[in-house]
Amino acid sequence: MVQQALDEDLNHGDVTTSALFPRAVQARAAIVTHHPMTVAGVAVAREVFLAVDPSVRIVKTVKDGAAVKAETHVIIVQGDVRSLLMAERVAVNFLQRLSGIATLTAKFCAAVRHAPTTILDTRKTTPGLRALEKWAVHLGGGKNHRFSLGDGILIKDNHLAVLRSTGVDVGEACRLARARAPHGLRIEVEAKSLQEVKEALAGNADIILLDNMSPALVQKAVALINQRALVEVSGGITLQTVADMARTGVDFISVGALTHSAPAADLSMDLTAYRGRHGRTR
Amino acid sequence: MVQQALDEDLNHGDVTTSALFPRAVQARAAIVTHHPMTVAGVAVAREVFLAVDPSVRIVKTVKDGAAVKAETHVIIVQGDVRSLLMAERVAVNFLQRLSGIATLTAKFCAAVRHAPTTILDTRKTTPGLRALEKWAVHLGGGKNHRFSLGDGILIKDNHLAVLRSTGVDVGEACRLARARAPHGLRIEVEAKSLQEVKEALAGNADIILLDNMSPALVQKAVALINQRALVEVSGGITLQTVADMARTGVDFISVGALTHSAPAADLSMDLTAYRGRHGRTR
Amino acid sequence: MVQQALDEDLNHGDVTTSALFPRAVQARAAIVTHHPMTVAGVAVAREVFLAVDPSVRIVKTVKDGAAVKAETHVIIVQGDVRSLLMAERVAVNFLQRLSGIATLTAKFCAAVRHAPTTILDTRKTTPGLRALEKWAVHLGGGKNHRFSLGDGILIKDNHLAVLRSTGVDVGEACRLARARAPHGLRIEVEAKSLQEVKEALAGNADIILLDNMSPALVQKAVALINQRALVEVSGGITLQTVADMARTGVDFISVGALTHSAPAADLSMDLTAYRGRHGRTR
Amino acid sequence: MVQQALDEDLNHGDVTTSALFPRAVQARAAIVTHHPMTVAGVAVAREVFLAVDPSVRIVKTVKDGAAVKAETHVIIVQGDVRSLLMAERVAVNFLQRLSGIATLTAKFCAAVRHAPTTILDTRKTTPGLRALEKWAVHLGGGKNHRFSLGDGILIKDNHLAVLRSTGVDVGEACRLARARAPHGLRIEVEAKSLQEVKEALAGNADIILLDNMSPALVQKAVALINQRALVEVSGGITLQTVADMARTGVDFISVGALTHSAPAADLSMDLTAYRGRHGRTR
Amino acid sequence: MVQQALDEDLNHGDVTTSALFPRAVQARAAIVTHHPMTVAGVAVAREVFLAVDPSVRIVKTVKDGAAVKAETHVIIVQGDVRSLLMAERVAVNFLQRLSGIATLTAKFCAAVRHAPTTILDTRKTTPGLRALEKWAVHLGGGKNHRFSLGDGILIKDNHLAVLRSTGVDVGEACRLARARAPHGLRIEVEAKSLQEVKEALAGNADIILLDNMSPALVQKAVALINQRALVEVSGGITLQTVADMARTGVDFISVGALTHSAPAADLSMDLTAYRGRHGRTR
Amino acid sequence: MVQQALDEDLNHGDVTTSALFPRAVQARAAIVTHHPMTVAGVAVAREVFLAVDPSVRIVKTVKDGAAVKAETHVIIVQGDVRSLLMAERVAVNFLQRLSGIATLTAKFCAAVRHAPTTILDTRKTTPGLRALEKWAVHLGGGKNHRFSLGDGILIKDNHLAVLRSTGVDVGEACRLARARAPHGLRIEVEAKSLQEVKEALAGNADIILLDNMSPALVQKAVALINQRALVEVSGGITLQTVADMARTGVDFISVGALTHSAPAADLSMDLTAYRGRHGRTR
Repeated sequence: MVQQALDEDLNHGDVTTSALFPRAVQARAAIVTHHPMTVAGVAVAREVFLAVDPSVRIVKTVKDGAAVKAETHVIIVQGDVRSLLMAERVAVNFLQRLSGIATLTAKFCAAVRHAPTTILDTRKTTPGLRALEKWAVHLGGGKNHRFSLGDGILIKDNHLAVLRSTGVDVGEACRLARARAPHGLRIEVEAKSLQEVKEALAGNADIILLDNMSPALVQKAVALINQRALVEVSGGITLQTVADMARTGVDFISVGALTHSAPAADLSMDLTAYRGRHGRTR
Repeated sequence: MVQQALDEDLNHGDVTTSALFPRAVQARAAIVTHHPMTVAGVAVAREVFLAVDPSVRIVKTVKDGAAVKAETHVIIVQGDVRSLLMAERVAVNFLQRLSGIATLTAKFCAAVRHAPTTILDTRKTTPGLRALEKWAVHLGGGKNHRFSLGDGILIKDNHLAVLRSTGVDVGEACRLARARAPHGLRIEVEAKSLQEVKEALAGNADIILLDNMSPALVQKAVALINQRALVEVSGGITLQTVADMARTGVDFISVGALTHSAPAADLSMDLTAYRGRHGRTR
Repeated sequence: MVQQALDEDLNHGDVTTSALFPRAVQARAAIVTHHPMTVAGVAVAREVFLAVDPSVRIVKTVKDGAAVKAETHVIIVQGDVRSLLMAERVAVNFLQRLSGIATLTAKFCAAVRHAPTTILDTRKTTPGLRALEKWAVHLGGGKNHRFSLGDGILIKDNHLAVLRSTGVDVGEACRLARARAPHGLRIEVEAKSLQEVKEALAGNADIILLDNMSPALVQKAVALINQRALVEVSGGITLQTVADMARTGVDFISVGALTHSAPAADLSMDLTAYRGRHGRTR
Repeated sequence: MVQQALDEDLNHGDVTTSALFPRAVQARAAIVTHHPMTVAGVAVAREVFLAVDPSVRIVKTVKDGAAVKAETHVIIVQGDVRSLLMAERVAVNFLQRLSGIATLTAKFCAAVRHAPTTILDTRKTTPGLRALEKWAVHLGGGKNHRFSLGDGILIKDNHLAVLRSTGVDVGEACRLARARAPHGLRIEVEAKSLQEVKEALAGNADIILLDNMSPALVQKAVALINQRALVEVSGGITLQTVADMARTGVDFISVGALTHSAPAADLSMDLTAYRGRHGRTR
Repeated sequence: MVQQALDEDLNHGDVTTSALFPRAVQARAAIVTHHPMTVAGVAVAREVFLAVDPSVRIVKTVKDGAAVKAETHVIIVQGDVRSLLMAERVAVNFLQRLSGIATLTAKFCAAVRHAPTTILDTRKTTPGLRALEKWAVHLGGGKNHRFSLGDGILIKDNHLAVLRSTGVDVGEACRLARARAPHGLRIEVEAKSLQEVKEALAGNADIILLDNMSPALVQKAVALINQRALVEVSGGITLQTVADMARTGVDFISVGALTHSAPAADLSMDLTAYRGRHGRTR
Repeated sequence: MVQQALDEDLNHGDVTTSALFPRAVQARAAIVTHHPMTVAGVAVAREVFLAVDPSVRIVKTVKDGAAVKAETHVIIVQGDVRSLLMAERVAVNFLQRLSGIATLTAKFCAAVRHAPTTILDTRKTTPGLRALEKWAVHLGGGKNHRFSLGDGILIKDNHLAVLRSTGVDVGEACRLARARAPHGLRIEVEAKSLQEVKEALAGNADIILLDNMSPALVQKAVALINQRALVEVSGGITLQTVADMARTGVDFISVGALTHSAPAADLSMDLTAYRGRHGRTR
């Protein structure tokens, strides 16, 4: 992933830096935060610098997952200024996206900290970056839902619509899945009404996903389920509404926005010292 | 890119769909918008469906770049429901990200439509997705800045800081770059003050980038430059501030948020008809 | 996988065939079984012929998963004899390995057909061929256990040994896993004695794996578990012993030999007709 | 190959180990043989451990090709128990397959040790693993036949059938091959009868492959050839029959089963010591 | 190879063509020779056009290996002018290199046409292009020597120097190679003097390579060898000297310059007709 | 690129070296020039040796770009003779091609050293080797023209032919390009006559490419342009004609032959010392 991103940015070098610095200049640089954030991606940024130039020295790094203040130096590097400038954009691009996700996740987690509810991500990730984005969610305090369609059973509305047209209800769908799916997986099923919740319970669903329900309706569903299955809710839940939803006592709240709409964290790279051939230092 | 995204989501198949549908069920599905947007990524979504199953029929597509209303079916596909469900998430993930970018770009372009100013993107893109994200900016009406460090000269503050420590000013930096850089490239240089603008003019810069200046200061710089170079501004410009900035008469405004912080557009896939082995149709 | 296998066998062509046949000769060939078997890999063999030469015509194929007699033509192809001979070895190599696995699996399934027991494979597969080998198990009537370490929880003796040294017993291990693992996965744990079975039940394990126990001890464990968890057995079970084990009433028997020690099925390619430039046909 | 195998097994990590061991635990592990065998694949297993975690220390290795007793520790490794457990299955999968091949080859070589006959492998290898499997044959004492269709001339029955239909006999086929094939290659041709052996000798074949002949018929062919060409036999030769065949004085016996049907050697990984955060050691 | 070359040339599109032709323009283009040549690479050029745009129509192609006059249209294509212009350089780059090699090879072959000598290439090829360059040699009438170090035995001066220091002479080197090398390969050995030729004969070398000898010395070596081995010469042989060398009666002359120093053939692409949206045609 | 070249040459090892040297022999080897040259590719050759065997020691290297005499040792390496012999051909293949290009470039640069003219390369490079070949041009003293179609505007005869058919002249083509192309790129346009030069000036072209003009005509064009644009010439310029062309005062001369027809430099690898197991040294 690091190599792919560098190829994208550097496919025939950095014409500006090559033109301005025909010879090595030793420099030190820091990537600096411009607001408080939960940092994610320092380990990736480290790989970016080393992939551009294995002789770059990593002077200091903040630990991924740390909650830091504005003006924190999350990574300090030292080496040929040409290498630092060539790595800059890609390193910051990873950090700003992953820290954006971790920071948003941390806010959601803080909002439900008084409830026994866990914040989950979804598969609504940026194509190609799923592993890193889910790691950022984890660093922000969330838990990861399915990584791929192959590692969890989730019977959704589109599955149910087709099954229903052949006379199969939610409960029967759960029984079909249990018979044919890998034996190590729990059966999760989506329910859009209390009637479907009842069917899911009749089918011995392990987890019931309440999609796009109001907190009030979720409350009723939770009472109906009464510990016989785990309860997950999803659908348009925001930082404003998540605490109310958590108060219903659901086990999990999954939030697509964690990965698909987290605004980039604001970080940039500053040179902090450098010395040319004639020994001049700032 | 499509194959990589599918590998990520489908590495050992879709256990839910395989369990529920042991045999082919013909279905039709549409990806539907949930708010007005500028669509980007339909051509990619098409490839996703065909990569999952070459026998899927693409019934209808909206043209990429079209401005559509809510509830538009941007792509309608027909085939085995298992293939449609396996392609769903990846297809929507591409569409929601790229349409998000195109839609935000279109808003910025609309905000400056009375000025002779062009909206540009930056290299602040998602690692691995640069080509697609820049295509989305283009579809939204923006123009693309550099694709990589190899296809444009842009002398930035970090370059200048090092050069300045060896007695090289902005103008001399421009002359150095002109002497050594590929002859087909214009020289663009960042200026943070009117003094630096003067130096840039003295160095015959082709394009001057005014970074993080107020509209008032930009106004003075534009007057000072007086058509002797193209003028670009950047730095924290939002939908709220972009019109004011455009009124200064600058040629270009570059906006990192187009690609790094555009919220995902809201789209989802609905099954619209299906028929099992016994001919039942909804 | 097909391309990789062809690269391995054809990296600079087929010097024998090139030397003997400077011009195209139309021919028909069949891959023939030399004993009864459950066929697996016909779809792969088809891709091999087409990858070598897209103009090869696939005249007839037996369906993967079919139980066939000796001397069955599992795939009949027609085209330039040079293409058929270049594809021969790779096509047969896939078929002999996958059909070997499917045939052995079918024998295990037949041996337990009077019991409610399902035959499972393991992760003891040939490096690089896991997906195809697990597909062959499926075609032979077995069910697939975990595809990778990421899609199922299985707490094994090595995990337990380390945990035990810090005072954590089997039941507590199950509780730890439940708290931290993805919520869609069941908890499976290995037990080597009745005592460990009791601990696993106390930890609310979903599935208990009885490793290397005799049928008599398994019988006792099944009685002790009494439907409170699913029961899987593993460890050195052969075609001779599998029926006895199934009679204990366990839910699953997993057999590493299905993939790691199935002898190759015996198939070969015969030319059945050919005609050179002057129209001569056998 | 190592990376491909790890990708297959670890594509989104090891959920069990991650759940149970949130922090590093130092451990030592050994891969142990469960019967006498000729070891092959230790060098590969080593790469597997290092690919999972470069900080794993390789404490001891048995040399590939060594004949070892049961309960031999063929590789001992030390490091974070999580890394050892993640590498375990892939490392053992390579070792069990390659040692299986080397062990079977060693048995064939032992059976012909009193004859001047060399045991050869064939191209009947597992797709994707040819280089490693041929290395295992070499370690077991066998000699490698062609690696690919591009590095040896072998005119087989299917070639001859087509040529015969245009009036070309075995000897003429040899002459055709000699004229057109790379000049550094010997001409090997298959003969199914004494008549074809005579034709091959008339064509100055360098090597004659006697396919599926009885030892008695092979004896006659050897006498007929009388050192004018090298002699290879193939076709269904087993550990039971190989010694008789070698007594005929043939130069080479090629055995497909070495690579396509060698049963997996039985090895497993055991943890031998470990110490958690609080210094406890077993 | 085609895709790699296109990636190199088109990594972010063709900015000139995109700027000038915002809409499709149908055109026809021909790649034209500017001197007589043996054409090689038309099949590759075809793939280049189709890889850029599968809707390009291949109107006409000259057969690879054909000897053509100046001003021959070796390939005529039709389609969107943007696709044709984007494919132009890569298609011509393949053709000019491969036709250069084929044309030079044809000249060498013509120079020895009265002798029973075969022109061979060497492994002195352009990194990454060996298969195509050897194909061009074949099209020009030459025969291919080894494709890789794995498909032929050639004992060279550097091998011999090391062996000699341990008392092994040329003949003994041949015997060592025969004992240990794959049995399907002939033994070729380099000789730098008549003494070494004698040693090679004593070692029953199959082929003797006379390196950097004068025609007179080669003549003596040929007499000495007297049909007991094949004879190859190499080392600085040019179009001027090759006929003299062939007259010595050697079997093979290998020429590194065929692939490492063939001047590019001169070809270029011309548009021959085009029509925009409004139907205007030249 | 190094790995690809090694795969090509070593796909199943080096049968000669493996047969002759079953055990390690320490040796030292040098790659030696056979005529004066500008060296290019030493850094690549270094990677080749290390890719074959990381334990090879690089004893000495000449700096890439150095002008050296005949019999210079450009790289001296030490290690197992088997590794050195396996790396030899690929290392020399890179060096001979890249040094050939650098040497030819240096000759062109020397021929114009009294003029203010810069020698440029073109995109007429060997498919797959563009980056390395352009680096060799740079080492020889030339400047690089476009790396790909995406990093420079060059309106050529084929573009102009199509535009002209719709009434667009050279000047208007420049204006179209300026409006739509990336803003950081200069506009370069081809002119075949003085009339087209005038049109280009009218269109404010930044650079005018005079294609296939005589020095006399170029002289007139330079006078006409009179510093209002940069001037580049191309088309069949040789070492014999380049000085005359430079005397016209053009800024740039681009020469396709630098990369497409440079003869290989002559270098070879010699073993200079070696010592077997018994300590014998030459």
